[in-house]
Amino acid sequence: MEIPNTMLAAFLAGPEQLIIKKIRTPKPGPEEVLIRVEACAICSSDISLIKKPWPGQPPYGYFIPGHEYSGIVVSCGETVDEVKVGDRVAVEVHYGCGRCDNCRVGNYTACLNWGNKKKGHRANGLTTAGGFSQYVINHISTVYKIPDSLSFEEASLVTNLGCVLYGFETAGGYIVGDYVAIIGEGPLGLIALQVAKTLGAEKVYLIGIDPHRLNVGKELGADRIIYAKDENPLEIIKRDTKGVGVDLSIEASGSIDGLRMSEKISKWMGKILLLGIPEGSIDINFHDLARGNKTIFTVRGEGWRNCKRGISLLRNKRINLKPLVTHMFPLNKINEALKTHIEKIDEAIKVIIKPNY
Amino acid sequence: MEIPNTMLAAFLAGPEQLIIKKIRTPKPGPEEVLIRVEACAICSSDISLIKKPWPGQPPYGYFIPGHEYSGIVVSCGETVDEVKVGDRVAVEVHYGCGRCDNCRVGNYTACLNWGNKKKGHRANGLTTAGGFSQYVINHISTVYKIPDSLSFEEASLVTNLGCVLYGFETAGGYIVGDYVAIIGEGPLGLIALQVAKTLGAEKVYLIGIDPHRLNVGKELGADRIIYAKDENPLEIIKRDTKGVGVDLSIEASGSIDGLRMSEKISKWMGKILLLGIPEGSIDINFHDLARGNKTIFTVRGEGWRNCKRGISLLRNKRINLKPLVTHMFPLNKINEALKTHIEKIDEAIKVIIKPNY
Amino acid sequence: MEIPNTMLAAFLAGPEQLIIKKIRTPKPGPEEVLIRVEACAICSSDISLIKKPWPGQPPYGYFIPGHEYSGIVVSCGETVDEVKVGDRVAVEVHYGCGRCDNCRVGNYTACLNWGNKKKGHRANGLTTAGGFSQYVINHISTVYKIPDSLSFEEASLVTNLGCVLYGFETAGGYIVGDYVAIIGEGPLGLIALQVAKTLGAEKVYLIGIDPHRLNVGKELGADRIIYAKDENPLEIIKRDTKGVGVDLSIEASGSIDGLRMSEKISKWMGKILLLGIPEGSIDINFHDLARGNKTIFTVRGEGWRNCKRGISLLRNKRINLKPLVTHMFPLNKINEALKTHIEKIDEAIKVIIKPNY
Amino acid sequence: MEIPNTMLAAFLAGPEQLIIKKIRTPKPGPEEVLIRVEACAICSSDISLIKKPWPGQPPYGYFIPGHEYSGIVVSCGETVDEVKVGDRVAVEVHYGCGRCDNCRVGNYTACLNWGNKKKGHRANGLTTAGGFSQYVINHISTVYKIPDSLSFEEASLVTNLGCVLYGFETAGGYIVGDYVAIIGEGPLGLIALQVAKTLGAEKVYLIGIDPHRLNVGKELGADRIIYAKDENPLEIIKRDTKGVGVDLSIEASGSIDGLRMSEKISKWMGKILLLGIPEGSIDINFHDLARGNKTIFTVRGEGWRNCKRGISLLRNKRINLKPLVTHMFPLNKINEALKTHIEKIDEAIKVIIKPNY
Repeated sequence: MEIPNTMLAAFLAGPEQLIIKKIRTPKPGPEEVLIRVEACAICSSDISLIKKPWPGQPPYGYFIPGHEYSGIVVSCGETVDEVKVGDRVAVEVHYGCGRCDNCRVGNYTACLNWGNKKKGHRANGLTTAGGFSQYVINHISTVYKIPDSLSFEEASLVTNLGCVLYGFETAGGYIVGDYVAIIGEGPLGLIALQVAKTLGAEKVYLIGIDPHRLNVGKELGADRIIYAKDENPLEIIKRDTKGVGVDLSIEASGSIDGLRMSEKISKWMGKILLLGIPEGSIDINFHDLARGNKTIFTVRGEGWRNCKRGISLLRNKRINLKPLVTHMFPLNKINEALKTHIEKIDEAIKVIIKPNY
Repeated sequence: MEIPNTMLAAFLAGPEQLIIKKIRTPKPGPEEVLIRVEACAICSSDISLIKKPWPGQPPYGYFIPGHEYSGIVVSCGETVDEVKVGDRVAVEVHYGCGRCDNCRVGNYTACLNWGNKKKGHRANGLTTAGGFSQYVINHISTVYKIPDSLSFEEASLVTNLGCVLYGFETAGGYIVGDYVAIIGEGPLGLIALQVAKTLGAEKVYLIGIDPHRLNVGKELGADRIIYAKDENPLEIIKRDTKGVGVDLSIEASGSIDGLRMSEKISKWMGKILLLGIPEGSIDINFHDLARGNKTIFTVRGEGWRNCKRGISLLRNKRINLKPLVTHMFPLNKINEALKTHIEKIDEAIKVIIKPNY
Repeated sequence: MEIPNTMLAAFLAGPEQLIIKKIRTPKPGPEEVLIRVEACAICSSDISLIKKPWPGQPPYGYFIPGHEYSGIVVSCGETVDEVKVGDRVAVEVHYGCGRCDNCRVGNYTACLNWGNKKKGHRANGLTTAGGFSQYVINHISTVYKIPDSLSFEEASLVTNLGCVLYGFETAGGYIVGDYVAIIGEGPLGLIALQVAKTLGAEKVYLIGIDPHRLNVGKELGADRIIYAKDENPLEIIKRDTKGVGVDLSIEASGSIDGLRMSEKISKWMGKILLLGIPEGSIDINFHDLARGNKTIFTVRGEGWRNCKRGISLLRNKRINLKPLVTHMFPLNKINEALKTHIEKIDEAIKVIIKPNY
Repeated sequence: MEIPNTMLAAFLAGPEQLIIKKIRTPKPGPEEVLIRVEACAICSSDISLIKKPWPGQPPYGYFIPGHEYSGIVVSCGETVDEVKVGDRVAVEVHYGCGRCDNCRVGNYTACLNWGNKKKGHRANGLTTAGGFSQYVINHISTVYKIPDSLSFEEASLVTNLGCVLYGFETAGGYIVGDYVAIIGEGPLGLIALQVAKTLGAEKVYLIGIDPHRLNVGKELGADRIIYAKDENPLEIIKRDTKGVGVDLSIEASGSIDGLRMSEKISKWMGKILLLGIPEGSIDINFHDLARGNKTIFTVRGEGWRNCKRGISLLRNKRINLKPLVTHMFPLNKINEALKTHIEKIDEAIKVIIKPNY
């Protein structure tokens, strides 16, 4: 596959200033591959860091965002034999330093040398060059082959699926016969409900405020949609469960009300999993939490090989990401794409950049 | 529902001597229910204990075997409000003393007061009266409502499903994307393959020597059938996994070869789960086991509420027990039924007694 | 041992009204023992429920509080052979129904039939008669023999130790070489620091605002006392850990500041354990919590046999409860005792009622 | 610190042929340090691989064994700031590839690219140059600072301690109040008994056949020594535990009898941990194992940061390795040292090479 000497990429030039620049196409070093990016999805994290830099982010003018992408391997560095040129691949974001106390035991998404590129840490699209670019370099540990049955657009959501699965694994991973409530009908919520169903939950509630997305959730298998503007989730769940509450509540909205609700609807000894990342300080009823012997789990990233696990579910048609892929834009329309994501124009769920079209 | 004063039951009168006797129908005490038995499946454990008594078994002349059954609640003792007369129910075998070190932390199938009825332990069909009987008493903790969509015959296999699920939970419970091999194509093996598939395994092997049952396994979803008389499971699995082996191997045959194979085919850091109970001492390669950092899990019974979890999978049509139900006999033909089970007459898989027909 | 027909007990007659009444001494039923109470410690929960009834609490005039006690077995009900008359014993508070979804898997302190005595639930001193009484009935599952080397006063704190150990077990239980911070210098904090040390923590911080109690903590082995009125715990811990934070932070103060601090000082992938039960809603930085992939564990009661485990630590002199026992009162001075606890008169830590003196 | 251009090292020239050669002192690359070896302990694995090469071992003439060592950092490669020149350090053996399925989740001691140096795997003294040498190169992830209070000889046993701790962590890590039996009075057994005691076991048995070493075990804190030639461990343990058995049995002898015994003495729901690596196939009673719902854990190496955890225990004087250090030899007497180890001359426990003396 021919690789051009130069390529186009979207650089962050200042707050909310993404500009397309032509630069030299990078070459993969040892343990690395060069990927031709076929699809890179916009994440709400992108909106946040384009507005205000995150810790570890390169300075303005030197940073290409975009961390949810897929593509084709076009060049392999030394020692790479896990994939070969021409392979269709998805990626995961995080690659840890491999030498801090967290990385040593496999918790690489929470690397204690976060942003320290010299020591080996990389999070493409967060601390190193990402996928709003025609080509990108990935460490081989962050690259996974995908089946032909999976489109690049769907494959760009593998990090989302990996994050949700990492959440389920963190919360114990075994939910056969359990009652599960998902709060938040965004991409993570719509994936979480499918994972809950596929892992054998008895009944899955999807709680939200966007009728269109709730409807998508219904089609994706939610047993009970709760439109929180009209219905009281706590009442419904308590009635269904004879006052007990759900075994697992998953907060995927990042909202204050969502977080509080997740505590209230969970049973004694129940688990609360945060997939959404709230903005700041939020008060919840810690008295009830403690007296109910409940646990709050959180997840950062898509750890513990869960991207690979997720691709297996996709290969086996256990999860459907197609309805989440609603919009596509070429790289030079990235600002329009971001606007579409932010304003949910035309019922957008996931908006995807196609850098090579 | 009218309850007759007397009932028929199969008593163990001596080694391999089951006789039908008419006795007074029992009455449920506090926390107990009386169940009209609609179906009671024969288990290989029954064959074993009919031949030679197990520890804790009542003396000849006083023991009604049969531990895999379902039926209709016909009378409820004091304080019972979890079920009501007329409910269709499945059961679990084990009810612990509730006061030993194992029971206190929920490990009731391994109750340290096993067989001590005075201290509260019961295992219907093993240490107390079982289901080869028209009526049987169960503690409310061992009774679960079943959906109308489930036949009594299928429901009599809930203990089998509960045992398999208990095994998966014991081995970690989270197998998304994993390679799983099942050794043994009996009832537990045929259920285990379905559980592995439903919980998201990447590829499930079913290894056995009975072509008919292997074929049933294929229809139930096994990705790859290995007919061990003609094919080499180790070679096939090593080839598929690039020499690595499976993440989880499940020994459900109880055989020497099966146990040895389960060690060989599992990867470094892999898990081996014993569902089958071997006859006695068996040598396996402990050198490889230890150098491979592998773990051997075992399960006794259907612990940790997994019967309830299993019924949820059945209600949601995630597991299919119908193909396992191959034969039915009335109570007075129990000896013919046992023979059918032992000799696998007419390709018998599960043979079921219908005490009220 | 002679048992009088009548006994004295402190009944809750109304809000903050404890009165001593003479009543008939109860007799143990099957699986029960009668204990002559030698020591019953006052807990902050007592203060709370004496002020305003807790869920499941018997009505005024019918309730004897006191849930932290020890004594001598004076009579055994049917089937009891775990202890015998004359044995010195400590107790645990919670005895679950044994039939709800939580109890079935060993989580009896969070019994879903809480307060339902008919279904078997009991929590002496919370929902059934407690230890501010000359004699008390306990289910055999809640009674543990103590060594002669342990005084009754120390033994009345076994529930505290059991609760702390249950917390450590809940949070993983393995902390060898870890940094641990304890916030709160009350009884649970002073026990938690000893448990952390005995389980092999690298360094244990004790953070508080009461110089006397902090000093007790120092004598009990805290590596570093942080007097939060003068020192900044976050700064000290970040400096010690090169900015990383502690592996485990234990909130044992129940305060708003304590809870917030517990989040801040814990490392990425760190664990936060709530031993204190906050009053109500509290805001903490959920953004940092989620981005740090931190977990919040809570504990209700002294579950999973941890009272028994705790007695083992006491027998082996690994934990010292003596410095916590500061005051003793006879039963008829219970109101003075409560005042001593509330106002921490004379540097009171644990105030103990001796009902038979 | 001056580094000579050449150094002495013991090379494996053929089966059981160790010869001292002078070679060029290596230089550390990025992420590496050069260590002046002060002490390198002989392990039974050394005897085994000197006799017959292990998988991944370099060819005769190119391999320096020795994997249990300590020393002084004399040179740091690029990016290393975790240690500095002059630091006293201990090491761990395993450094995984960081890119296989096991390494990605922290299981680096069971790296699936074992022996593949090109892909990054190293196990100094097993697949790469080890410590029977004046200087050695280590990846920074395998180097830990030690306190001044710890001698280099003791520090050379940190891998042993790390292995034992990894075993305890693998088996759950929380043993407060448990009965623990250790089978085997070699170095791992003598360390395991101390770890069991320090983590709060109720009673620790040490079972063996060497009176001298058993006596060392007694001095190191074993509650009960069982001299297996005269006493019956099963009888003693069953009597002590009222027929129940131990919560955790640790097989550290590698012998057939030891392995069988470890199964027999463990309770229902008990755990069996293999620290010893048996020679080959061994038959144990799998019927009892399965009916007892017991688990067998194994460990390869000293994973999950447990060397670091172990150094913390040593710093805090919770473990005493001094009595295990019985003999020291200069590098040129390595063959005499090996003989001392093999024949346990003069009651040798650990025999240590001092390459720079």
